[in-house]
Amino acid sequence: MFTLIKKGFWSPDVKAIILFFIILTNSVSSQTDSSTIKKIYNYYLTKSNTYSNLEYLATKIGGRLSGSPEAELAVKWAKKAMYEAGADTVILQPCMVPHWVRGKKEKCVLSSPKANINKLLNCCALGNSIGTGPAGVRGKVIEVRSWEELEKLGEKEVKGKVVFYNVFFDQSHVRTGTAYGETVPYRGKGASKAAKYGAIACIVRSMTSLADDEPHTGNMNYDTAVSKIKIATLAISYKAADLLVETLQKDKELTIFIETNCETLPDAPSFNVVGQIFGSEKPNEYIITGGHLDAWDNGQGAHDDGAGVVQSIEVLAMFKKLGIKPKHSIRAVAFMNEENGLAGGNAYGKWAQDKKEKHLAALETDAGGFSPRAFGVDTVKGLYALVSKWKSLFTPYMLERVEKGGGGADIGPLAKQGVPCIGFEPDTQRYFDIHHTAQDTFDKIHKRELNLSAGAIGALFYLIDKYYNQ
Amino acid sequence: MFTLIKKGFWSPDVKAIILFFIILTNSVSSQTDSSTIKKIYNYYLTKSNTYSNLEYLATKIGGRLSGSPEAELAVKWAKKAMYEAGADTVILQPCMVPHWVRGKKEKCVLSSPKANINKLLNCCALGNSIGTGPAGVRGKVIEVRSWEELEKLGEKEVKGKVVFYNVFFDQSHVRTGTAYGETVPYRGKGASKAAKYGAIACIVRSMTSLADDEPHTGNMNYDTAVSKIKIATLAISYKAADLLVETLQKDKELTIFIETNCETLPDAPSFNVVGQIFGSEKPNEYIITGGHLDAWDNGQGAHDDGAGVVQSIEVLAMFKKLGIKPKHSIRAVAFMNEENGLAGGNAYGKWAQDKKEKHLAALETDAGGFSPRAFGVDTVKGLYALVSKWKSLFTPYMLERVEKGGGGADIGPLAKQGVPCIGFEPDTQRYFDIHHTAQDTFDKIHKRELNLSAGAIGALFYLIDKYYNQ
Repeated sequence: MFTLIKKGFWSPDVKAIILFFIILTNSVSSQTDSSTIKKIYNYYLTKSNTYSNLEYLATKIGGRLSGSPEAELAVKWAKKAMYEAGADTVILQPCMVPHWVRGKKEKCVLSSPKANINKLLNCCALGNSIGTGPAGVRGKVIEVRSWEELEKLGEKEVKGKVVFYNVFFDQSHVRTGTAYGETVPYRGKGASKAAKYGAIACIVRSMTSLADDEPHTGNMNYDTAVSKIKIATLAISYKAADLLVETLQKDKELTIFIETNCETLPDAPSFNVVGQIFGSEKPNEYIITGGHLDAWDNGQGAHDDGAGVVQSIEVLAMFKKLGIKPKHSIRAVAFMNEENGLAGGNAYGKWAQDKKEKHLAALETDAGGFSPRAFGVDTVKGLYALVSKWKSLFTPYMLERVEKGGGGADIGPLAKQGVPCIGFEPDTQRYFDIHHTAQDTFDKIHKRELNLSAGAIGALFYLIDKYYNQ
Repeated sequence: MFTLIKKGFWSPDVKAIILFFIILTNSVSSQTDSSTIKKIYNYYLTKSNTYSNLEYLATKIGGRLSGSPEAELAVKWAKKAMYEAGADTVILQPCMVPHWVRGKKEKCVLSSPKANINKLLNCCALGNSIGTGPAGVRGKVIEVRSWEELEKLGEKEVKGKVVFYNVFFDQSHVRTGTAYGETVPYRGKGASKAAKYGAIACIVRSMTSLADDEPHTGNMNYDTAVSKIKIATLAISYKAADLLVETLQKDKELTIFIETNCETLPDAPSFNVVGQIFGSEKPNEYIITGGHLDAWDNGQGAHDDGAGVVQSIEVLAMFKKLGIKPKHSIRAVAFMNEENGLAGGNAYGKWAQDKKEKHLAALETDAGGFSPRAFGVDTVKGLYALVSKWKSLFTPYMLERVEKGGGGADIGPLAKQGVPCIGFEPDTQRYFDIHHTAQDTFDKIHKRELNLSAGAIGALFYLIDKYYNQ
């Protein structure tokens, strides 16, 4: 239309009339959208089932690591919850998942006759770690603050000792995820790098924004290219790490005794749970939102990522209960095994590819059930530009930024296939206080915060379905 | 500059050079600002005393209603804390405050022989209410859902009864303050309006975003123009209100017994506490930030408004500890008596007027110590336009909106004098869960959230001081 006007094809009067109608149409459409979005948020804030769904998942099922009986219960629950939300169909996508079990509670004992200390430290084995078995291991401790320091110390200082990665979560970062990203490599790769120099076990300071006594678990990986030897590895609480540092200053000869009883069993069969509403116009084009169903065994997986699962399920309920018929098929995906393997995310990607399913867009919500902040949107295929235009529709609802680049671990395989991905960003200040701990429980969920973020996802799905084409 | 270029006064080359220097200067200045602001936030997130100051105020002093011994302790504490923060001087501004005391714990008993209920309801007298005394009052209950309903019922239905304002906090509002604003008139004016029709006492459903068993106090006023008769008035918890509604449906003849022992003593002398750093260039021009020092007696006044007080004090510390010498005088004001009288806010306004102090700008922080969201800025004297320009300096720190219109109750008198006022807006989702209850305690404060908001105020003060002139 703009081109025709520019070329002087029509008289100024005709141009004015055309412009008037363009403005009118846009303004009516924008009014309709803003009125529908008000209804959507109203639904979420007053009638949705996100909170009660999450209460069940977190408190009745609780921790649900891949391969566990609780994960199996969670699959059944998710299927039921999706049907109750109004899914036209629920697909169970099979995947084989790692099956790591913690076994009997870990022990980590700090002993220093010189400092008159013999103390059980709050600790937890890291996912995928081998166990020491009941005999345990005991050794002197070498404190390391960076990879560079480890290299410098080398075999001479490390051999036969327990390496203690004393790397702090940098509180000066505004986004706590940045601090997490800086410290988490020590959890993931620390064991093999320490084993390379002959360490007998590996301890990390918990990746936490809170100076408390909770140990934070999380996955680790053995890198056989770095070292063929696998050593037991665990996290100790922030306060335990402080005590260890303090005691080391008094007594370089102190010892740590570690007993972990974890082990990796054979891979187990499991599933992604995919709830779907069929599109009225383009049923073979999919818009998906997902969170992960598995959660660490020590807590209830309320924020990580029960919140994302119930927010995703509620998108189906929102369309159904408000009587909005989506043009495209809408899917809520409860991914399995995000925490320690990504088997579910990979299985979904392969399924989509094998079945040649056209995915218009994929959103992941896996940063806790806090107040909304932003959408991070891939710049491919015009989606970012479109979502940016809608920003003013979201600002009244406290979602105030649309940023370039988005996605998440579970939808990573879709991103590789060229699907435009969106990462949902809630407020991150409190997330790493409780992330991967026994404190990630339902009582930490705030109903209005959970629903305001769920509403942002619901409203975005309404708009993408209505306006986005490729 | 733009006009000259437009008029073709200089050649294109000269224009280009001039433009280059404009861009260069702006960009250097903006780089300096963004680097200083990074330092400011870094200070707040890693070194500030906001959290420890608030811990002391909330847990060692606790509830501190105007006229109480705790309020007196809080005045002494604030003076000390301001000097410790680096204030060049601390002024105690006298004011006479209302002195209402709760007295012996209230009782509110619901009795229905028909429904087999005789139950003590969780309740609290409202500030400024008269007490029933130990004899108490007993009466049948008439439920009212709006002013219109009260008018319709009239004397015929109301006389001799206890009026129960059963008005819900509307959860569909995005900002919880909107819902509070809708319901709070029933707390403030309900008693006199009920007394007009012969009610013997008045009960309100707590103004709360949480369906729990905590009663929320707050101030009320008797309006002698509406009724000369003063009746006792109290709030019951959300759950108690639900029980009352439910029981009324079974038994219209049920009775409520109310015993409150509150009373209003003679006005008491008190103070605003004003900490000041002298400006290096314009010491007689003031930029002030304030919160209120008084807090309801039932809780610790952590979010309301210990948070605002310590955030304000920390602005002084930030300038001093980072070695930034402000051009104008900077004041942190701990206002007295915001909760039940505004004597402190009025005294400050009068002081400023009497002394002909030029106030460049005034900020109030009194919405809880949560994550930052926005500045609301008065459009007078160019401040809004200026702050809007700085928006991009704040977005990396999660303060994402600059809105028109700002201020607060305590700086209201300054606004009337034409001082441009700013209201600081944190995230509001959790505030009215605990507002005016026994649950407004220090453990509800999140250190990073408190400091990120404090940092926004600190950074804004740095910019206003540097760039704002009238």
